[in-house]
Amino acid sequence: MKIDHIALQVDDIRESVDWYIDNYGCSIIHCDDTWAFLQFDNIKLALVIEDQHPHHISFKVDEIEWEDHIVEHRDGSVSKYVQDPSGNKIEVIKYKGK
Amino acid sequence: MKIDHIALQVDDIRESVDWYIDNYGCSIIHCDDTWAFLQFDNIKLALVIEDQHPHHISFKVDEIEWEDHIVEHRDGSVSKYVQDPSGNKIEVIKYKGK
Repeated sequence: MKIDHIALQVDDIRESVDWYIDNYGCSIIHCDDTWAFLQFDNIKLALVIEDQHPHHISFKVDEIEWEDHIVEHRDGSVSKYVQDPSGNKIEVIKYKGK
Repeated sequence: MKIDHIALQVDDIRESVDWYIDNYGCSIIHCDDTWAFLQFDNIKLALVIEDQHPHHISFKVDEIEWEDHIVEHRDGSVSKYVQDPSGNKIEVIKYKGK
């Protein structure tokens, strides 16, 4: 299975986007003041604001059980967080139409 | 550029390896009581013990300037940590002979 994306909390989205582009070369999928999504050759990196999302890694699944704690995002994807045995946050995400 | 690997801190390496294999399917590159390296289809995931390595993402580079703060690993790779503008730990690693 692929890891769909990594999410890191940052203080300033646009400053961080510039830093990752300048240092490591990637393209912008999305960028506004509240979050950014960067495309590297093998994986996407989400930059998020601390109070909106936790640090996490994300796995894309074909189906997600409709239950409590599922969040629907603006792009139509749905996701929920689970935790690994040590409490690391793991997002399980289903993209719209995929 | 590719992101070479992600590293997450865990409490128990072998318990965590089993959890990631059972839930998300990956193969084991390395596993002992102090760290593990898991291969997903697009990226590697390192599981590390809290007092040995920080949470980080890692970029592979062809050259690394030989200076303070470089660490040589048991497999001959050398690396150093830098920080993004928000203090997230970024490892820059050069593999032996690559």
